[in-house]
Amino acid sequence: MSQSAEIICVGTELLLGDILNSNAQFLAQELARLGIAHYYQTVVGDNPARIKGVVNHASDRAQLLIFTGGLGPTPDDLTHETLADCFGVPLVEHPEILADITRKFAERGRVMTANNRKQALLPEGAAVLTNDSGSAPGIIWQPKPDLTILTFPGVPVEMQRMWREVAVPYLQSQGWGQMTIYSRTLKFWGISESALAEQVSPFFDLQNPTVAPYANNGEVKLRLSASAASEADARQMIAPIEDQLRQIGGLNCYGADNDTLASVVGRLLNASQTTLAVAESCTGGGLGEAITAVPGSSRYFWGGVISYDNAIKTKLLDVQVQDLEEHGAVSHTVAKQMAIGVRSRLGTTWGLSITGVAGPDGGTPSKPVGLVYIGLAGPSDGQSFEHQFGALRGRDWIRRLSIASALDHLRRSLINLN
Amino acid sequence: MSQSAEIICVGTELLLGDILNSNAQFLAQELARLGIAHYYQTVVGDNPARIKGVVNHASDRAQLLIFTGGLGPTPDDLTHETLADCFGVPLVEHPEILADITRKFAERGRVMTANNRKQALLPEGAAVLTNDSGSAPGIIWQPKPDLTILTFPGVPVEMQRMWREVAVPYLQSQGWGQMTIYSRTLKFWGISESALAEQVSPFFDLQNPTVAPYANNGEVKLRLSASAASEADARQMIAPIEDQLRQIGGLNCYGADNDTLASVVGRLLNASQTTLAVAESCTGGGLGEAITAVPGSSRYFWGGVISYDNAIKTKLLDVQVQDLEEHGAVSHTVAKQMAIGVRSRLGTTWGLSITGVAGPDGGTPSKPVGLVYIGLAGPSDGQSFEHQFGALRGRDWIRRLSIASALDHLRRSLINLN
Repeated sequence: MSQSAEIICVGTELLLGDILNSNAQFLAQELARLGIAHYYQTVVGDNPARIKGVVNHASDRAQLLIFTGGLGPTPDDLTHETLADCFGVPLVEHPEILADITRKFAERGRVMTANNRKQALLPEGAAVLTNDSGSAPGIIWQPKPDLTILTFPGVPVEMQRMWREVAVPYLQSQGWGQMTIYSRTLKFWGISESALAEQVSPFFDLQNPTVAPYANNGEVKLRLSASAASEADARQMIAPIEDQLRQIGGLNCYGADNDTLASVVGRLLNASQTTLAVAESCTGGGLGEAITAVPGSSRYFWGGVISYDNAIKTKLLDVQVQDLEEHGAVSHTVAKQMAIGVRSRLGTTWGLSITGVAGPDGGTPSKPVGLVYIGLAGPSDGQSFEHQFGALRGRDWIRRLSIASALDHLRRSLINLN
Repeated sequence: MSQSAEIICVGTELLLGDILNSNAQFLAQELARLGIAHYYQTVVGDNPARIKGVVNHASDRAQLLIFTGGLGPTPDDLTHETLADCFGVPLVEHPEILADITRKFAERGRVMTANNRKQALLPEGAAVLTNDSGSAPGIIWQPKPDLTILTFPGVPVEMQRMWREVAVPYLQSQGWGQMTIYSRTLKFWGISESALAEQVSPFFDLQNPTVAPYANNGEVKLRLSASAASEADARQMIAPIEDQLRQIGGLNCYGADNDTLASVVGRLLNASQTTLAVAESCTGGGLGEAITAVPGSSRYFWGGVISYDNAIKTKLLDVQVQDLEEHGAVSHTVAKQMAIGVRSRLGTTWGLSITGVAGPDGGTPSKPVGLVYIGLAGPSDGQSFEHQFGALRGRDWIRRLSIASALDHLRRSLINLN
């Protein structure tokens, strides 16, 4: 029989949008890692009737219900009461929990309130899921055959520790998570999602491993997932498919998983023992920020100049005043001079520059918002590249795409050198 | 009859935990703001049978279903097909959408693929919810009495614009969101959540408006929410409470709502008609990036130097080699010299600098990871400030706090000048 889990997050603060549901993401990643199937996530407020409806519905379609939230000391916190009610059992007080809560309050020099006593009440028949980082324990409960319920507090750090230290070993002892789902994500730059999808469409029909495309922030990804008895087996199933996809993707495929364009460029700079400096206009420092987000970037990144004002382009980057007047700051000529200037001033192997119109103001018919030039100077020459990112998605988008494109041009140059 | 909305996010990437469900948070905040009741959020994968089950269940308990995701060009994107199937209507091709997609591809110099044609297919009877920032439109559809369906792409920037520009006016024209919940968020820097909570605790008992604290990324916020028949009424209820809270918060309260430390600093620089340059070491350009994230920042921000390598600190910022050797790059002396140097080299009123140990490597017993110095040079003097952000939360956290703290020092100096 195919068993699956369902994540149920309880809390009116989620319905009000006060907090981002990072608990659902953590649990989703964990279920995927353990190979436990999971088809639905539900968020419901602190309302007993609605929580009850969700429990009834979920227990018809899943065999493992994982709750977060609603275990605190306030009258709003109703998860355990409601679960007891759903399955027709009373709440019973656990003296050992009460003692534990009392001790924790004493340790922190605080007085326990009557409210906190409520946290020692659990549905009859439920085992305690110990919380070593906070006051509210969860439960491990089989209220009926083929249904397991786990509850966790909403505080991420408490929930995650309880999950790792107690819930995972328990689930594995019960036969959950025997299969492992292992995933690799291939990352692409310089190709649209639809164009890539057409190139690799036969792979979308595979059953195990599966291949699925997705896109965000201008970046296209392919996720390869295999289900197997061990991670090693799953990796072995993925490897040949990954090879084929990388072959098709060619230079557009820049890396996998935690690789970023900046980390890949860093590896290539390290490998070639070369150094980099940047000159930024419309990105205002964002290119340097992206490069130095990589730990250890000081080995190849020396620094740069943020030449937001034109006077700085001439003063610190030796851009010719005449070229600024003739071609404008947003031009092939100035992009190239910025890259050459910063390379020469800082004494690095490479100079990489960005100048463009990020908007919302400052666009003209010949230099519209979204027009960006990227300059690249190396040991042998200087080049420049024109991009039109469009005005539609706004300033942040244009700046983010400018930074990624600049890194991508450098990446391709570093690869082509070899 | 009490009407409510339900948020349904479609995408296997959410079930695998690949992405955080920020769309649900955005829509939840918006529904709260508009006073539209909302009791459930569901996440479901790219699976027609399961999507269909979710639609059937949700349309029994809500009158407005808001979908995100599954509108893209790939075979995985099934939201519109499945909705058509749920309500027994065919998909019809909209020539105007096809023309629009074709035009957008042409503008960006790309060739449209056959896959993209699929995005012009909508359920019969559904109106187009225009997407001005991307290729996939959504729908506005009443497949049966008392049920309205809105669909949005999963890309947050596209979804948010479509929501604001098309969906909200439509919903209000249909009688949704008649009570208005209006919220203001006061933002603080330089005080902990618990210290602020103690100062303002009596306000937490208010019923309407309500006052609630929250914290993220080192920043503390107070949200004031009032429910009233009109936004004007709600604003009037909030104004006196906001005044009192600002009085209590003093200089620690730096702004409200969309204000950022960078935008507030920008306003103060504009008002004082002064200019700014930055010198960055461990933040690598992130301070300039934050300042130039504000549209119009070119009026007061001239640029800066990213002096990641020590040689750049001497070459471009006139930091004394002797001081680098004696005190180290992470020191009061060097922070001050960097600020003075960049102010003098770029010719601005203010120079702001950051030098620190962002980790994970490079810490020593006397200069541990998380130790950061901020330098500030103005017309009359140079100062420096020491911060210890700790190593626990990692490189990104240290860099983000360094940037915010630098902006906050400048903000306080600009205010104290008046």
